[in-house]
Amino acid sequence: MKVDLLIYNATQLVTCTSPGEPKRGQAMVDVGLILDGAIAIADGQIVAVGPSSEVRADFTARETVDATGKIVCPGFVDPHTHVVYAGDRVNEFELRIRGASYMEIMQAGGGIVSTMRATRAATVEQLVAETRPRLETMLALGTTSVEIKTGYGLDTKTEIKMLQAIALLASSPHYDLVPTFIGAHAVPPEYKGRTDEYVDLVIEDMLPTVAEWQHATRNTQHTSPFLASSPLFCDVFCEANVFDREQSWRVLEAGLKFGLPAKIHADEFANLGGVSLAIELGAVSADHLDVTPPAEVEKLAQSNTVGVVLPAVNFNLGSAHFADARAMIDAGVALALATDINPGSAPCPSMPLVMAIACRYQKLLPAEALNASTINAAHAVGLGHKLGSLEAGKQADLLLINAPDYRHLAYQFGGNLVERVVKRGQFVT
Amino acid sequence: MKVDLLIYNATQLVTCTSPGEPKRGQAMVDVGLILDGAIAIADGQIVAVGPSSEVRADFTARETVDATGKIVCPGFVDPHTHVVYAGDRVNEFELRIRGASYMEIMQAGGGIVSTMRATRAATVEQLVAETRPRLETMLALGTTSVEIKTGYGLDTKTEIKMLQAIALLASSPHYDLVPTFIGAHAVPPEYKGRTDEYVDLVIEDMLPTVAEWQHATRNTQHTSPFLASSPLFCDVFCEANVFDREQSWRVLEAGLKFGLPAKIHADEFANLGGVSLAIELGAVSADHLDVTPPAEVEKLAQSNTVGVVLPAVNFNLGSAHFADARAMIDAGVALALATDINPGSAPCPSMPLVMAIACRYQKLLPAEALNASTINAAHAVGLGHKLGSLEAGKQADLLLINAPDYRHLAYQFGGNLVERVVKRGQFVT
Repeated sequence: MKVDLLIYNATQLVTCTSPGEPKRGQAMVDVGLILDGAIAIADGQIVAVGPSSEVRADFTARETVDATGKIVCPGFVDPHTHVVYAGDRVNEFELRIRGASYMEIMQAGGGIVSTMRATRAATVEQLVAETRPRLETMLALGTTSVEIKTGYGLDTKTEIKMLQAIALLASSPHYDLVPTFIGAHAVPPEYKGRTDEYVDLVIEDMLPTVAEWQHATRNTQHTSPFLASSPLFCDVFCEANVFDREQSWRVLEAGLKFGLPAKIHADEFANLGGVSLAIELGAVSADHLDVTPPAEVEKLAQSNTVGVVLPAVNFNLGSAHFADARAMIDAGVALALATDINPGSAPCPSMPLVMAIACRYQKLLPAEALNASTINAAHAVGLGHKLGSLEAGKQADLLLINAPDYRHLAYQFGGNLVERVVKRGQFVT
Repeated sequence: MKVDLLIYNATQLVTCTSPGEPKRGQAMVDVGLILDGAIAIADGQIVAVGPSSEVRADFTARETVDATGKIVCPGFVDPHTHVVYAGDRVNEFELRIRGASYMEIMQAGGGIVSTMRATRAATVEQLVAETRPRLETMLALGTTSVEIKTGYGLDTKTEIKMLQAIALLASSPHYDLVPTFIGAHAVPPEYKGRTDEYVDLVIEDMLPTVAEWQHATRNTQHTSPFLASSPLFCDVFCEANVFDREQSWRVLEAGLKFGLPAKIHADEFANLGGVSLAIELGAVSADHLDVTPPAEVEKLAQSNTVGVVLPAVNFNLGSAHFADARAMIDAGVALALATDINPGSAPCPSMPLVMAIACRYQKLLPAEALNASTINAAHAVGLGHKLGSLEAGKQADLLLINAPDYRHLAYQFGGNLVERVVKRGQFVT
């Protein structure tokens, strides 16, 4: 049979094939290695994966690539980002080093409100222009699919503008984008002290408008797979002094009624029971988990909700405390990693660096970190059936890595081992 | 006047000009910013630096580059590396995550002895072939000058082989390399329990051979500035269970007699008084300094010895402890940063990531981190008169950075903001 692309002689073909869905526990140390492996690709899909001798006997190709001395692995899925925003927070970065308190930073015009102001002031074209180079940087570092949250608008108009920016960016053939609405990301200044009223706005005005936008976009975006096969999620920042468990429940429950499956920011600083809320509502993921108590880790392990940890945030704070991802995996949680790229708490585009941090400060094995950045991350955005592993029938999103052993991806840090990126069967870098 | 290259309209031209040599204390927060700056270059040297309007009035150029929206800063100097080696230590990396002890790693064939074995077994051509891509990666990340230590031979023949590899690599126009002999990097297995005898070997056999090699090389390497204008240093690992203070003194003192100025690995795990030894011997730098007590920090501040900290090593260990570089700067130490790139404790080619770690875990301001990676790092290898800042008469080693503010170099992490590299007046990336 003739295919479009055949990559062969990969020293390691790393399939990240999951024995269960989502992948759990001990299984996470198995990355589905094929030594001297090959992969055949046609029409943007994976047709066959196996030893080079077998695949080369079965297929010829328009284009062949010899991957001797290299590894081939799935493109990374970054399942938690705030990569659409305007401006930066470099002043705040310096103030924090000087020991400024949260309040001093807010008074100096920093914090999430400063990004909200810049994002409200930007046109959709400006948002697209500022974000595209960031996505291209992430692509060069191996990330082929990106979840992107709204939440810097905090009013209906700007939240929709952010979704429009994501939709425009999604027309690129370079990456799949998965949108998440998080109107309940913070309480904007105009609602200060009136959190319940802001929650009413999210539920009664934003969510209907977002659902309408989703419906309209699905019917018009014929040229992109965006929103045709991917969900639109609803997320909330369940945290002390932001949205409490009851308010978070109201937002996510309302989202579900509009057909938006749930995600949650839980246990970053305070434990408000966000994990059990996520499980109760069938959330696809619960994210952060820095202070989740062992009993809730056990519940998470029994659920279908993926745990997403964001160690670049802890690193960015210069913190010695990290989510206990080791205990989560040992308990059987399906664990994913994400950058959380955003201008305040994680100006970091790199999944390999996140893997490097996780291996060192959370004691993940390189295999666990790689599964957490591919197949489990795909499950964390509801696309585990289509992305995140190299197996016949899945989308052909993969990386050629300039190293002979997948563990180099986490062992080396600070450089970029990604040599080429294949997205939907095409070389895009 | 006509020059070879004129770069103008740089949003920030960051000169890192030092008010004293080496640079100290509060001065470190000043990076010598010129807004809307320009730089004129001829014959590989900087001819003029100043506001664009002035420099453009005074010079025309064969090639002009508009740096609008970008910063121009000195190329980074990495003043402490072990980048010449054979093999890798990826197995050891995984063993350490699994909780293996130092002894278990040694028994599994890991540790410095494994790199010694691979380096002894490699030809000089293999060492060059394995190292060159690492230096090119460092160059792409902005490092234009690199100190490189021997110390994986631990016998006379292989120590010389490592120096030969450095000399061959130094023929590249892409970077300046500064060699350091560290035969006393560890006690090789064949001298186990006989450390004093190994020190005798270093002093009586290695050092004379190295000095002879230096002399011969200076007289033959006409095509490269290597060793003609740069020193060859002598270093020692002054550490509990490695070389004690007395043994370290013997090695460095003997090095001085052969004309090799001193450097020292001091206070990484145990405080043996290595800093005062460094000062006593007029060492150009004292490196690591993880457990240096305040009284010795004060002495260092009063000396001409540069303090070099290596936070990528602490990061690599997943440690919450870092050298107290904040206190060192506050005390008035001339502080430099380095990667310490090596296959065991720091598989990290990136000075910007080291800056990012230092700002977060050692509370350096971005300005201090940048001075520590340029002018002070140049002083740490005895080349502060020639490298490390943008001023007339210095070598034209500089970077175009894809950001409008130098603080982005440390604020963002995990990507690569270096757009172009100029080495000795030529674009090399």
